[in-house]
Amino acid sequence: MNRILLEPHEVLPDGRVLLQNGRARHIREVLKAALGQRLRVGLLEGPRGTGEVVAVEGERVWLRCVWEAEIPPRPAVDLVLAMPRPKVMRRLWAPLAAMGVGRICVIGAERVERGYLEARALDPKVYRPLLIEGLQQAGDTRVPQVTVHPRFRVFVERELDEVLPQGVRLVADPREERTVTDVMREHGVGGGNPRVQRVVLAVGPEGGWASHEREMLSRRKFVGVRWGRRTLRSDAACLALLAIVHEMVGD
Amino acid sequence: MNRILLEPHEVLPDGRVLLQNGRARHIREVLKAALGQRLRVGLLEGPRGTGEVVAVEGERVWLRCVWEAEIPPRPAVDLVLAMPRPKVMRRLWAPLAAMGVGRICVIGAERVERGYLEARALDPKVYRPLLIEGLQQAGDTRVPQVTVHPRFRVFVERELDEVLPQGVRLVADPREERTVTDVMREHGVGGGNPRVQRVVLAVGPEGGWASHEREMLSRRKFVGVRWGRRTLRSDAACLALLAIVHEMVGD
Repeated sequence: MNRILLEPHEVLPDGRVLLQNGRARHIREVLKAALGQRLRVGLLEGPRGTGEVVAVEGERVWLRCVWEAEIPPRPAVDLVLAMPRPKVMRRLWAPLAAMGVGRICVIGAERVERGYLEARALDPKVYRPLLIEGLQQAGDTRVPQVTVHPRFRVFVERELDEVLPQGVRLVADPREERTVTDVMREHGVGGGNPRVQRVVLAVGPEGGWASHEREMLSRRKFVGVRWGRRTLRSDAACLALLAIVHEMVGD
Repeated sequence: MNRILLEPHEVLPDGRVLLQNGRARHIREVLKAALGQRLRVGLLEGPRGTGEVVAVEGERVWLRCVWEAEIPPRPAVDLVLAMPRPKVMRRLWAPLAAMGVGRICVIGAERVERGYLEARALDPKVYRPLLIEGLQQAGDTRVPQVTVHPRFRVFVERELDEVLPQGVRLVADPREERTVTDVMREHGVGGGNPRVQRVVLAVGPEGGWASHEREMLSRRKFVGVRWGRRTLRSDAACLALLAIVHEMVGD
Protein backbone atom coordinates (compact mmCIF):
# COMPACT_ATOMS: atom_id res chain seq x y z
CA MET A 1 0.00 0.00 0.00
CA ASN A 2 2.02 2.93 -1.31
CA ARG A 3 -0.84 5.41 -1.03
CA ILE A 4 -3.82 5.14 1.31
CA LEU A 5 -7.00 5.79 -0.64
CA LEU A 6 -10.11 7.31 0.86
CA GLU A 7 -13.71 7.47 -0.31
CA PRO A 8 -14.89 11.12 -0.52
CA HIS A 9 -17.63 10.46 2.07
CA GLU A 10 -15.03 9.33 4.63
CA VAL A 11 -13.40 12.75 4.79
CA LEU A 12 -14.86 15.36 7.17
CA PRO A 13 -15.17 18.98 6.00
CA ASP A 14 -12.03 19.95 7.97
CA GLY A 15 -9.94 17.31 6.15
CA ARG A 16 -9.89 14.82 9.02
CA VAL A 17 -10.59 11.16 8.44
CA LEU A 18 -11.04 8.29 10.89
CA LEU A 19 -9.58 4.97 9.78
CA GLN A 20 -10.33 1.57 11.24
CA ASN A 21 -9.68 -2.03 10.22
CA GLY A 22 -7.40 -2.68 7.22
CA ARG A 23 -5.98 0.74 6.48
CA ALA A 24 -5.59 1.64 10.18
CA ARG A 25 -3.81 -1.65 10.80
CA HIS A 26 -1.53 -1.01 7.82
CA ILE A 27 -0.65 2.43 9.18
CA ARG A 28 0.08 1.10 12.68
CA GLU A 29 1.74 -2.22 11.87
CA VAL A 30 3.39 -1.89 8.46
CA LEU A 31 4.16 1.82 8.25
CA LYS A 32 4.59 1.99 12.06
CA ALA A 33 3.46 5.60 11.76
CA ALA A 34 3.84 7.81 14.84
CA LEU A 35 1.90 10.93 15.75
CA GLY A 36 2.78 13.80 13.41
CA GLN A 37 4.02 11.53 10.62
CA ARG A 38 2.89 12.37 7.09
CA LEU A 39 1.60 9.63 4.82
CA ARG A 40 0.74 9.57 1.13
CA VAL A 41 -3.03 9.59 0.71
CA GLY A 42 -5.46 10.01 -2.15
CA LEU A 43 -9.13 10.71 -2.67
CA LEU A 44 -10.79 8.19 -4.96
CA GLU A 45 -11.43 9.93 -8.31
CA GLY A 46 -9.88 13.02 -6.75
CA PRO A 47 -6.48 14.48 -5.95
CA ARG A 48 -3.49 12.93 -4.24
CA GLY A 49 -2.44 14.44 -0.94
CA THR A 50 -0.71 14.09 2.41
CA GLY A 51 -2.29 12.79 5.60
CA GLU A 52 -0.78 13.69 8.95
CA VAL A 53 -1.37 11.24 11.78
CA VAL A 54 -3.15 13.47 14.33
CA ALA A 55 -4.38 10.81 16.76
CA VAL A 56 -4.12 7.09 17.43
CA GLU A 57 -6.96 5.75 19.59
CA GLY A 58 -6.38 2.07 20.22
CA GLU A 59 -6.90 0.44 16.84
CA ARG A 60 -8.20 3.59 15.20
CA VAL A 61 -6.15 6.24 13.44
CA TRP A 62 -7.09 9.85 12.70
CA LEU A 63 -5.46 11.57 9.74
CA ARG A 64 -5.71 15.21 8.71
CA CYS A 65 -5.44 15.45 4.93
CA VAL A 66 -4.22 18.21 2.64
CA TRP A 67 -4.92 17.77 -1.05
CA GLU A 68 -2.95 18.65 -4.16
CA ALA A 69 -4.58 21.14 -6.52
CA GLU A 70 -4.76 18.81 -9.52
CA ILE A 71 -6.57 15.56 -10.02
CA PRO A 72 -4.35 13.03 -11.81
CA PRO A 73 -5.57 12.33 -15.35
CA ARG A 74 -7.19 9.03 -16.18
CA PRO A 75 -4.65 6.60 -17.73
CA ALA A 76 -4.49 6.97 -21.53
CA VAL A 77 -5.01 3.27 -22.23
CA ASP A 78 -8.32 1.41 -22.35
CA LEU A 79 -8.82 -2.34 -22.46
CA VAL A 80 -11.32 -4.54 -24.25
CA LEU A 81 -11.01 -7.98 -22.73
CA ALA A 82 -12.81 -11.15 -23.74
CA MET A 83 -13.86 -12.58 -20.38
CA PRO A 84 -11.24 -15.13 -19.25
CA ARG A 85 -11.87 -17.88 -16.70
CA PRO A 86 -13.40 -16.16 -13.65
CA LYS A 87 -10.45 -17.17 -11.45
CA VAL A 88 -8.07 -15.50 -13.90
CA MET A 89 -10.28 -12.39 -14.09
CA ARG A 90 -10.32 -12.09 -10.32
CA ARG A 91 -6.53 -12.10 -10.20
CA LEU A 92 -6.28 -9.54 -13.01
CA TRP A 93 -8.23 -6.66 -11.44
CA ALA A 94 -5.51 -5.47 -9.07
CA PRO A 95 -2.58 -5.56 -11.54
CA LEU A 96 -4.71 -3.95 -14.26
CA ALA A 97 -5.56 -1.06 -11.95
CA ALA A 98 -1.95 -0.86 -10.80
CA MET A 99 -0.63 -0.63 -14.36
CA GLY A 100 -3.21 1.98 -15.24
CA VAL A 101 -6.29 1.52 -17.40
CA GLY A 102 -8.90 4.19 -18.05
CA ARG A 103 -11.74 1.89 -18.95
CA ILE A 104 -12.14 -1.88 -19.00
CA CYS A 105 -14.81 -3.38 -21.25
CA VAL A 106 -15.26 -7.06 -20.44
CA ILE A 107 -16.96 -8.70 -23.38
CA GLY A 108 -18.40 -12.01 -24.53
CA ALA A 109 -17.12 -13.79 -27.63
CA GLU A 110 -17.67 -17.10 -29.39
CA ARG A 111 -14.93 -18.82 -27.41
CA VAL A 112 -15.93 -17.35 -24.05
CA GLU A 113 -17.94 -19.87 -22.05
CA ARG A 114 -21.37 -18.42 -21.51
CA GLY A 115 -21.41 -18.89 -17.74
CA TYR A 116 -18.25 -16.81 -17.34
CA LEU A 117 -20.20 -13.57 -17.83
CA GLU A 118 -22.40 -14.43 -14.85
CA ALA A 119 -19.39 -14.93 -12.61
CA ARG A 120 -19.03 -13.22 -9.24
CA ALA A 121 -15.70 -11.83 -10.48
CA LEU A 122 -17.77 -9.33 -12.52
CA ASP A 123 -19.74 -8.11 -9.50
CA PRO A 124 -18.62 -4.57 -8.51
CA LYS A 125 -18.69 -5.68 -4.86
CA VAL A 126 -15.97 -8.18 -5.76
CA TYR A 127 -13.87 -6.19 -8.22
CA ARG A 128 -13.99 -2.66 -6.81
CA PRO A 129 -11.94 -3.51 -3.69
CA LEU A 130 -9.44 -5.31 -5.94
CA LEU A 131 -9.17 -2.31 -8.25
CA ILE A 132 -8.60 -0.07 -5.21
CA GLU A 133 -5.95 -2.49 -3.94
CA GLY A 134 -4.13 -2.06 -7.27
CA LEU A 135 -4.46 1.73 -7.13
CA GLN A 136 -3.09 1.80 -3.58
CA GLN A 137 -0.10 -0.19 -4.81
CA ALA A 138 0.51 2.13 -7.77
CA GLY A 139 -0.36 5.40 -6.03
CA ASP A 140 -3.15 6.37 -8.42
CA THR A 141 -6.65 7.60 -7.49
CA ARG A 142 -8.58 7.03 -10.72
CA VAL A 143 -10.64 3.85 -10.59
CA PRO A 144 -10.90 2.11 -13.99
CA GLN A 145 -14.45 2.35 -15.33
CA VAL A 146 -15.72 -1.18 -15.84
CA THR A 147 -18.56 -2.22 -18.12
CA VAL A 148 -19.67 -5.71 -19.13
CA HIS A 149 -20.91 -6.42 -22.66
CA PRO A 150 -22.10 -10.00 -23.04
CA ARG A 151 -22.82 -9.85 -26.78
CA PHE A 152 -19.78 -9.38 -28.99
CA ARG A 153 -21.61 -8.15 -32.08
CA VAL A 154 -23.74 -5.67 -30.16
CA PHE A 155 -20.66 -4.34 -28.42
CA VAL A 156 -18.55 -3.92 -31.54
CA GLU A 157 -21.25 -2.60 -33.84
CA ARG A 158 -23.28 -0.42 -31.50
CA GLU A 159 -21.50 0.28 -28.23
CA LEU A 160 -17.78 0.45 -29.00
CA ASP A 161 -17.67 3.82 -30.75
CA GLU A 162 -19.75 5.37 -28.01
CA VAL A 163 -17.88 3.89 -25.05
CA LEU A 164 -14.38 4.22 -26.54
CA PRO A 165 -14.67 6.98 -29.12
CA GLN A 166 -10.97 7.83 -29.37
CA GLY A 167 -7.66 6.13 -29.62
CA VAL A 168 -5.32 3.97 -31.63
CA ARG A 169 -6.99 0.54 -31.64
CA LEU A 170 -4.81 -2.54 -31.24
CA VAL A 171 -5.89 -6.17 -31.09
CA ALA A 172 -3.53 -8.81 -29.72
CA ASP A 173 -3.08 -11.65 -32.19
CA PRO A 174 -0.07 -14.00 -32.10
CA ARG A 175 -0.38 -14.62 -35.86
CA GLU A 176 0.32 -11.00 -36.76
CA GLU A 177 3.67 -9.80 -38.03
CA ARG A 178 3.68 -6.29 -36.58
CA THR A 179 4.49 -5.49 -32.98
CA VAL A 180 3.00 -2.81 -30.75
CA THR A 181 6.15 -0.78 -31.35
CA ASP A 182 5.73 -0.98 -35.14
CA VAL A 183 2.10 0.14 -35.10
CA MET A 184 2.55 2.84 -32.47
CA ARG A 185 5.46 4.32 -34.44
CA GLU A 186 3.26 4.51 -37.52
CA HIS A 187 0.91 6.60 -35.39
CA GLY A 188 3.76 8.85 -34.35
CA VAL A 189 3.87 7.56 -30.76
CA GLY A 190 7.23 6.93 -29.10
CA GLY A 191 10.60 8.29 -30.11
CA GLY A 192 10.22 11.63 -28.38
CA ASN A 193 6.61 12.17 -29.35
CA PRO A 194 4.75 10.91 -26.31
CA ARG A 195 1.23 11.51 -25.08
CA VAL A 196 -0.26 11.69 -28.58
CA GLN A 197 -3.62 10.14 -27.96
CA ARG A 198 -5.47 7.33 -26.28
CA VAL A 199 -4.86 3.66 -27.03
CA VAL A 200 -7.48 0.90 -26.95
CA LEU A 201 -6.09 -2.59 -26.53
CA ALA A 202 -8.25 -5.66 -27.26
CA VAL A 203 -7.26 -9.07 -25.89
CA GLY A 204 -9.15 -12.17 -26.99
CA PRO A 205 -10.29 -15.34 -25.26
CA GLU A 206 -8.01 -18.30 -24.51
CA GLY A 207 -8.77 -20.01 -27.83
CA GLY A 208 -8.44 -16.77 -29.82
CA TRP A 209 -11.03 -14.73 -31.66
CA ALA A 210 -13.31 -16.48 -34.15
CA SER A 211 -12.49 -15.34 -37.68
CA HIS A 212 -15.72 -13.34 -38.08
CA GLU A 213 -14.96 -11.58 -34.78
CA ARG A 214 -11.48 -10.72 -35.98
CA GLU A 215 -12.97 -9.29 -39.18
CA MET A 216 -15.50 -7.19 -37.27
CA LEU A 217 -12.69 -5.76 -35.17
CA SER A 218 -10.70 -4.96 -38.33
CA ARG A 219 -13.68 -3.10 -39.75
CA ARG A 220 -13.66 -1.00 -36.57
CA LYS A 221 -10.00 -0.12 -37.22
CA PHE A 222 -8.40 -2.53 -34.75
CA VAL A 223 -4.89 -3.30 -36.01
CA GLY A 224 -3.42 -6.70 -35.14
CA VAL A 225 -0.23 -6.79 -33.08
CA ARG A 226 1.80 -9.68 -31.76
CA TRP A 227 3.99 -9.88 -28.71
CA GLY A 228 7.25 -11.63 -29.61
CA ARG A 229 6.93 -15.08 -31.15
CA ARG A 230 5.14 -16.51 -28.16
CA THR A 231 1.48 -17.05 -27.45
CA LEU A 232 0.72 -15.81 -23.95
CA ARG A 233 -2.29 -16.66 -21.80
CA SER A 234 -4.73 -13.79 -21.95
CA ASP A 235 -3.86 -12.42 -18.50
CA ALA A 236 -0.13 -12.34 -19.25
CA ALA A 237 -0.89 -10.89 -22.70
CA CYS A 238 -2.88 -8.06 -21.09
CA LEU A 239 -0.09 -7.14 -18.72
CA ALA A 240 2.68 -7.49 -21.33
CA LEU A 241 0.93 -5.34 -23.92
CA LEU A 242 -0.23 -2.76 -21.37
CA ALA A 243 3.35 -2.48 -20.14
CA ILE A 244 4.64 -1.79 -23.65
CA VAL A 245 1.87 0.66 -24.55
CA HIS A 246 2.45 2.64 -21.33
CA GLU A 247 6.21 2.65 -21.92
CA MET A 248 5.60 4.13 -25.38
CA VAL A 249 2.85 6.59 -24.49
CA GLY A 250 4.96 7.66 -21.53
CA ASP A 251 2.14 8.57 -19.15
CA MET B 1 -1.35 -25.95 -24.49
CA ASN B 2 -0.08 -24.65 -27.83
CA ARG B 3 2.76 -27.17 -28.06
CA ILE B 4 2.90 -30.55 -26.37
CA LEU B 5 6.27 -30.97 -24.69
CA LEU B 6 7.97 -34.31 -24.20
CA GLU B 7 10.81 -35.42 -21.99
CA PRO B 8 13.63 -36.97 -24.10
CA HIS B 9 13.27 -40.32 -22.29
CA GLU B 10 9.61 -40.56 -23.34
CA VAL B 11 10.46 -40.76 -27.03
CA LEU B 12 11.28 -44.19 -28.51
CA PRO B 13 14.17 -44.49 -31.00
CA ASP B 14 11.71 -44.58 -33.93
CA GLY B 15 10.16 -41.25 -32.88
CA ARG B 16 7.02 -42.74 -31.36
CA VAL B 17 5.75 -41.62 -27.98
CA LEU B 18 2.95 -42.94 -25.80
CA LEU B 19 0.96 -40.31 -23.92
CA GLN B 20 -1.36 -40.89 -21.01
CA ASN B 21 -3.10 -38.68 -18.45
CA GLY B 22 -2.94 -34.90 -18.90
CA ARG B 23 -1.44 -34.51 -22.34
CA ALA B 24 -3.39 -37.45 -23.80
CA ARG B 25 -6.60 -36.01 -22.39
CA HIS B 26 -5.74 -32.61 -23.86
CA ILE B 27 -5.20 -34.19 -27.29
CA ARG B 28 -8.47 -36.14 -27.15
CA GLU B 29 -10.76 -33.63 -25.46
CA VAL B 30 -9.45 -30.15 -26.23
CA LEU B 31 -7.71 -30.63 -29.57
CA LYS B 32 -10.17 -33.42 -30.52
CA ALA B 33 -7.37 -34.85 -32.62
CA ALA B 34 -8.24 -37.67 -35.02
CA LEU B 35 -5.96 -40.36 -36.41
CA GLY B 36 -3.47 -38.87 -38.85
CA GLN B 37 -3.73 -35.35 -37.44
CA ARG B 38 -0.46 -33.47 -36.92
CA LEU B 39 0.15 -31.62 -33.66
CA ARG B 40 2.84 -29.17 -32.58
CA VAL B 41 5.25 -30.93 -30.26
CA GLY B 42 8.61 -30.15 -28.71
CA LEU B 43 11.41 -31.98 -26.99
CA LEU B 44 12.38 -30.39 -23.67
CA GLU B 45 15.74 -28.62 -24.17
CA GLY B 46 15.60 -29.88 -27.77
CA PRO B 47 13.96 -29.04 -31.09
CA ARG B 48 10.36 -28.29 -31.92
CA GLY B 49 8.59 -30.72 -34.22
CA THR B 50 5.37 -32.28 -35.44
CA GLY B 51 3.64 -35.27 -33.89
CA GLU B 52 1.22 -37.31 -35.98
CA VAL B 53 -1.50 -39.16 -34.11
CA VAL B 54 -0.81 -42.78 -35.13
CA ALA B 55 -3.05 -44.58 -32.63
CA VAL B 56 -5.65 -43.89 -29.98
CA GLU B 57 -6.06 -46.76 -27.51
CA GLY B 58 -8.80 -45.89 -25.05
CA GLU B 59 -7.38 -43.04 -22.98
CA ARG B 60 -3.87 -43.39 -24.44
CA VAL B 61 -2.54 -41.65 -27.51
CA TRP B 62 0.44 -42.63 -29.67
CA LEU B 63 2.26 -39.91 -31.59
CA ARG B 64 5.03 -40.30 -34.16
CA CYS B 65 7.31 -37.28 -33.99
CA VAL B 66 9.51 -35.60 -36.56
CA TRP B 67 11.90 -32.96 -35.28
CA GLU B 68 13.15 -29.70 -36.73
CA ALA B 69 16.88 -29.46 -37.39
CA GLU B 70 17.54 -26.55 -35.04
CA ILE B 71 17.10 -26.23 -31.30
CA PRO B 72 15.52 -22.87 -30.42
CA PRO B 73 17.99 -20.58 -28.66
CA ARG B 74 17.61 -19.85 -24.97
CA PRO B 75 15.75 -16.54 -24.39
CA ALA B 76 18.15 -13.59 -24.27
CA VAL B 77 16.86 -12.25 -20.95
CA ASP B 78 17.80 -13.43 -17.46
CA LEU B 79 16.08 -12.55 -14.22
CA VAL B 80 17.40 -11.88 -10.72
CA LEU B 81 14.40 -11.91 -8.42
CA ALA B 82 14.30 -11.19 -4.69
CA MET B 83 12.08 -13.99 -3.41
CA PRO B 84 8.49 -12.69 -3.16
CA ARG B 85 5.79 -14.23 -0.97
CA PRO B 86 5.75 -17.95 -1.81
CA LYS B 87 2.17 -17.75 -3.11
CA VAL B 88 3.21 -15.01 -5.53
CA MET B 89 6.31 -16.98 -6.60
CA ARG B 90 4.21 -20.05 -7.33
CA ARG B 91 1.96 -18.04 -9.64
CA LEU B 92 4.94 -16.45 -11.41
CA TRP B 93 6.68 -19.58 -12.69
CA ALA B 94 4.34 -20.29 -15.60
CA PRO B 95 4.10 -16.73 -16.97
CA LEU B 96 7.87 -16.23 -16.56
CA ALA B 97 8.55 -19.35 -18.63
CA ALA B 98 5.89 -18.31 -21.13
CA MET B 99 7.42 -14.87 -21.62
CA GLY B 100 10.88 -16.35 -21.97
CA VAL B 101 13.71 -16.22 -19.45
CA GLY B 102 17.07 -17.93 -19.88
CA ARG B 103 17.96 -18.11 -16.23
CA ILE B 104 16.15 -17.21 -13.02
CA CYS B 105 18.22 -16.49 -9.91
CA VAL B 106 15.96 -16.30 -6.88
CA ILE B 107 17.81 -14.46 -4.15
CA GLY B 108 17.52 -13.39 -0.54
CA ALA B 109 17.65 -9.74 0.51
CA GLU B 110 17.24 -7.71 3.68
CA ARG B 111 13.50 -7.25 3.09
CA VAL B 112 12.85 -10.86 2.09
CA GLU B 113 11.40 -12.80 5.01
CA ARG B 114 13.84 -15.53 5.86
CA GLY B 115 11.30 -18.37 5.74
CA TYR B 116 10.40 -17.56 2.15
CA LEU B 117 13.60 -19.18 0.86
CA GLU B 118 12.59 -22.47 2.45
CA ALA B 119 9.22 -22.44 0.72
CA ARG B 120 7.92 -25.37 -1.31
CA ALA B 121 7.54 -22.97 -4.24
CA LEU B 122 11.33 -23.23 -4.65
CA ASP B 123 11.29 -27.03 -4.85
CA PRO B 124 12.00 -28.22 -8.43
CA LYS B 125 9.22 -30.79 -8.01
CA VAL B 126 6.84 -27.85 -7.60
CA TYR B 127 8.23 -25.36 -10.09
CA ARG B 128 9.38 -27.54 -12.96
CA PRO B 129 5.83 -28.61 -13.97
CA LEU B 130 4.78 -24.96 -13.77
CA LEU B 131 7.68 -23.87 -15.97
CA ILE B 132 6.74 -26.59 -18.50
CA GLU B 133 3.11 -25.42 -18.38
CA GLY B 134 4.33 -21.94 -19.35
CA LEU B 135 6.52 -23.31 -22.14
CA GLN B 136 3.62 -25.37 -23.52
CA GLN B 137 1.55 -22.18 -23.60
CA ALA B 138 4.27 -20.21 -25.38
CA GLY B 139 5.52 -22.99 -27.66
CA ASP B 140 9.11 -22.93 -26.40
CA THR B 141 11.22 -25.93 -25.38
CA ARG B 142 13.98 -24.31 -23.31
CA VAL B 143 13.33 -24.62 -19.58
CA PRO B 144 14.59 -21.61 -17.60
CA GLN B 145 17.57 -22.56 -15.44
CA VAL B 146 16.66 -21.85 -11.84
CA THR B 147 19.09 -21.33 -8.98
CA VAL B 148 18.44 -20.14 -5.44
CA HIS B 149 20.88 -17.85 -3.65
CA PRO B 150 19.82 -17.17 -0.06
CA ARG B 151 22.58 -14.67 0.77
CA PHE B 152 22.44 -11.41 -1.14
CA ARG B 153 26.04 -10.36 -0.57
CA VAL B 154 27.49 -13.76 -1.47
CA PHE B 155 25.37 -13.81 -4.63
CA VAL B 156 26.30 -10.33 -5.81
CA GLU B 157 29.97 -10.40 -4.89
CA ARG B 158 30.91 -13.98 -5.68
CA GLU B 159 28.30 -15.77 -7.76
CA LEU B 160 26.70 -13.17 -10.06
CA ASP B 161 29.58 -12.71 -12.53
CA GLU B 162 29.96 -16.45 -12.85
CA VAL B 163 26.28 -17.31 -13.24
CA LEU B 164 25.35 -14.31 -15.42
CA PRO B 165 28.61 -13.25 -17.05
CA GLN B 166 27.11 -11.26 -19.92
CA GLY B 167 24.42 -8.73 -20.59
CA VAL B 168 23.12 -5.25 -20.02
CA ARG B 169 22.20 -5.17 -16.32
CA LEU B 170 19.01 -3.41 -15.28
CA VAL B 171 17.54 -3.06 -11.81
CA ALA B 172 13.89 -2.07 -11.36
CA ASP B 173 13.57 0.93 -9.08
CA PRO B 174 10.51 3.22 -9.06
CA ARG B 175 12.62 6.17 -7.87
CA GLU B 176 14.76 6.19 -11.01
CA GLU B 177 14.26 8.67 -13.81
CA ARG B 178 15.31 6.53 -16.75
CA THR B 179 13.09 3.93 -18.37
CA VAL B 180 14.09 0.59 -19.87
CA THR B 181 13.76 2.20 -23.30
CA ASP B 182 16.19 4.99 -22.35
CA VAL B 183 18.87 2.65 -21.03
CA MET B 184 18.50 0.06 -23.78
CA ARG B 185 18.85 2.75 -26.44
CA GLU B 186 22.08 3.90 -24.81
CA HIS B 187 23.29 0.34 -25.30
CA GLY B 188 22.28 0.44 -28.96
CA VAL B 189 19.33 -1.93 -28.52
CA GLY B 190 16.04 -1.21 -30.30
CA GLY B 191 15.44 1.07 -33.25
CA GLY B 192 16.46 -1.45 -35.89
CA ASN B 193 19.41 -2.86 -33.99
CA PRO B 194 17.93 -5.90 -32.31
CA ARG B 195 19.52 -8.99 -30.84
CA VAL B 196 22.58 -7.13 -29.59
CA GLN B 197 23.29 -9.00 -26.40
CA ARG B 198 21.80 -10.52 -23.31
CA VAL B 199 19.90 -8.52 -20.69
CA VAL B 200 19.83 -9.23 -16.96
CA LEU B 201 16.86 -7.78 -15.10
CA ALA B 202 16.85 -7.51 -11.29
CA VAL B 203 13.57 -7.06 -9.41
CA GLY B 204 13.62 -6.33 -5.68
CA PRO B 205 11.46 -7.38 -2.75
CA GLU B 206 8.08 -5.86 -1.91
CA GLY B 207 9.60 -3.21 0.34
CA GLY B 208 12.38 -2.38 -2.14
CA TRP B 209 16.11 -2.97 -1.90
CA ALA B 210 17.96 -1.76 1.20
CA SER B 211 20.25 1.13 0.29
CA HIS B 212 23.44 -0.91 0.75
CA GLU B 213 21.99 -3.58 -1.55
CA ARG B 214 21.18 -0.99 -4.17
CA GLU B 215 24.77 0.29 -3.94
CA MET B 216 26.22 -3.20 -4.30
CA LEU B 217 24.13 -3.72 -7.43
CA SER B 218 25.34 -0.39 -8.83
CA ARG B 219 28.93 -1.45 -8.29
CA ARG B 220 28.15 -4.53 -10.38
CA LYS B 221 26.94 -2.26 -13.20
CA PHE B 222 23.20 -2.62 -12.62
CA VAL B 223 21.54 0.51 -13.98
CA GLY B 224 18.28 1.62 -12.33
CA VAL B 225 15.16 1.79 -14.48
CA ARG B 226 11.61 2.71 -13.62
CA TRP B 227 8.37 1.59 -15.22
CA GLY B 228 6.09 4.59 -15.71
CA ARG B 229 5.31 6.63 -12.60
CA ARG B 230 3.74 3.72 -10.80
CA THR B 231 5.09 1.29 -8.25
CA LEU B 232 4.10 -2.22 -9.23
CA ARG B 233 4.04 -5.30 -7.04
CA SER B 234 7.12 -7.36 -7.78
CA ASP B 235 5.28 -9.98 -9.86
CA ALA B 236 3.65 -7.36 -12.08
CA ALA B 237 6.97 -5.51 -12.28
CA CYS B 238 8.71 -8.69 -13.52
CA LEU B 239 6.16 -9.28 -16.24
CA ALA B 240 5.97 -5.61 -17.30
CA LEU B 241 9.74 -5.17 -17.57
CA LEU B 242 10.27 -8.56 -19.23
CA ALA B 243 7.63 -7.62 -21.79
CA ILE B 244 9.40 -4.37 -22.63
CA VAL B 245 12.88 -5.89 -22.75
CA HIS B 246 11.68 -8.67 -25.08
CA GLU B 247 9.90 -6.16 -27.29
CA MET B 248 13.17 -4.20 -27.60
CA VAL B 249 15.56 -7.13 -27.99
CA GLY B 250 13.12 -8.61 -30.49
CA ASP B 251 13.83 -12.28 -29.86
